[in-house]
Amino acid sequence: MYYVFFVGTAGSGKTTMVKEFQDYLLDQEMDASIVNMDPAVESLPYVPDFDVRDYIDSRDVMQRFGLGPNSSLIVSIDLLLTKATEIKSDLGNIESNYVLVDTPGQIELFAYRDSGRTFSSLLVGDNKSVNVFLMDSFLAKESRSYVSLLLLSSSVRFRLGTPQVNVLSKTDLLSKEELERVTSWGEGENLLDSLGTIDDYSFELVRTLMESLEVPPLPVSSQTRQGFDELYALIQRILAGGEDFETEENNSRL
Amino acid sequence: MYYVFFVGTAGSGKTTMVKEFQDYLLDQEMDASIVNMDPAVESLPYVPDFDVRDYIDSRDVMQRFGLGPNSSLIVSIDLLLTKATEIKSDLGNIESNYVLVDTPGQIELFAYRDSGRTFSSLLVGDNKSVNVFLMDSFLAKESRSYVSLLLLSSSVRFRLGTPQVNVLSKTDLLSKEELERVTSWGEGENLLDSLGTIDDYSFELVRTLMESLEVPPLPVSSQTRQGFDELYALIQRILAGGEDFETEENNSRL
Repeated sequence: MYYVFFVGTAGSGKTTMVKEFQDYLLDQEMDASIVNMDPAVESLPYVPDFDVRDYIDSRDVMQRFGLGPNSSLIVSIDLLLTKATEIKSDLGNIESNYVLVDTPGQIELFAYRDSGRTFSSLLVGDNKSVNVFLMDSFLAKESRSYVSLLLLSSSVRFRLGTPQVNVLSKTDLLSKEELERVTSWGEGENLLDSLGTIDDYSFELVRTLMESLEVPPLPVSSQTRQGFDELYALIQRILAGGEDFETEENNSRL
Repeated sequence: MYYVFFVGTAGSGKTTMVKEFQDYLLDQEMDASIVNMDPAVESLPYVPDFDVRDYIDSRDVMQRFGLGPNSSLIVSIDLLLTKATEIKSDLGNIESNYVLVDTPGQIELFAYRDSGRTFSSLLVGDNKSVNVFLMDSFLAKESRSYVSLLLLSSSVRFRLGTPQVNVLSKTDLLSKEELERVTSWGEGENLLDSLGTIDDYSFELVRTLMESLEVPPLPVSSQTRQGFDELYALIQRILAGGEDFETEENNSRL
C-alpha cells in the first residue's frame, strides 16, 4: 500500500487534483482510495474512504475553545491524535494499492508544526509514502513567488523527511507564454534574471535552491490531465526506491 | 514616520508583542501608533489607531462568497485594496513617529501572495519600514522547525524586499536549557548536529541559510520585555540605513 500526500497552499488545487488523480488511476485499472485530512472542509467533490471529519468537528472546536478558524484547525489535528487507536483500527479497512491524502491548506501544519508529521506517520504506518507539493501556477507565474513556493516546498520536505515531487498545478490557467517561462525557470534558465535586483543573501539562497532541484517542477492540470502520466511515473520511481530520491542520508560528513 | 511590521505564523505572539512594544515605546516617551491589518481578528488587547476591520468584514465576505475562513481572509485583503484611496486618506491622520503593524497569522499573504506586499506598500508610502519576523519559540525549540521557520523568514524577506529582523518570541515559555540551546543555533553552533541525518539537499540549504544570517534571531519576551532594548536598537540601526542591512542591491554580478 502506497500513500500519496497532496500538500500545498490554500487554493492550489489539492482537492480537485486528488479527485482527478483517483479517476486517472481507476481508468488505468489501479485501485485508489482517498483520505480527507482537512477537518474544516465544507464539501468535497469525491467520497472519501476515510474522513477526519468523522472524528472531529472543527466548528465545534472553534466554539468550544473560543478559537479563530486558523487556531481551531491546529487544535483539531492535535485532538485527532488523541484518537489514534480508533483511527488506526478504522484505517485498517482501507485495502487499495494507492491511498491519496487530501490535506488542509494551512500548510504550517506540515512546514512548522509537529502535528502534521505525527498524523501523517499515523496514517502511513509501515507503508511507503511520497508527497506531491502543489505550486499554484497562478502564484508561481511571478518569479519571486516561484522562489517563495520552492522555499516552502523545501520547508515541507525538510520537516516531513519524505520524498517529494513538486508540481506546477492548474497550468490550464496559464497562457502558452507564461507556461513556457515558468517551465524554463525550473530548468535553471532565466530565473535569476527575472528576479530583478536582489541582495546577496537571496542570491545565494536562490542558487542553492535551484542547484539542488533534482527534477524541475512538473506542469500538471487536473482539467486536462496534462502531466498525470509523468507524475505517475515519478511517483512510481520514488516508491520503487529510485536512487535519485534518497532522503535521511549522509550526515556523516558533518 | 517609521513603519514596523510584526509578521509571523498564527500563535507566534504578534498581537501581544505589538501591544507591549507600544507600551515600551510610550514608556520611553516616544509616540507610537498601532495599525491592525487582520480583518478576521475577534478581539484586541490594544486600541488600534487604524483598523482594517472598519473597511471590511471578513465574516461577511465568508458568507457572501461562500468561502472558507482561509480564502475569505485572502479575498478580504484583496477587497481592501479596492478601497485604497479612502484608506490612504484616513491613514493621513496618523502622526506618530512609529507605526506598529499587527498582521494576520495567514503568513502566506506575505510569503507567497502579492496582496500582502501591495497593501504594505499602500500603508508605508514614502516612509521607511522594517519587518520583525516572529519565530515562535514553542515551535523553534525543535531544530527542524527552527530551520523551517528560518526558511519561512527568508521567504517573507525575499517576497517583501524589506529589511527584516528575526526574533525568537515568547522565550519566557522556554526553560533555561532550551533557551540556551536555541540561542546557540542562531550563533551557528550545534544546529547541524541536532538535525540528525539529513539529505544533501537539506544540508546545503541549511548551510546557506546559516551563513547568510547577519544577526542571530533575537530572544524576546512580551511578558518580561526581555530583548526589547536590543530590538529597538536593531530597528534604529536599520531605519538609520545601517550598512549591514542593505536589500535590493547588487544583482549586477549575474
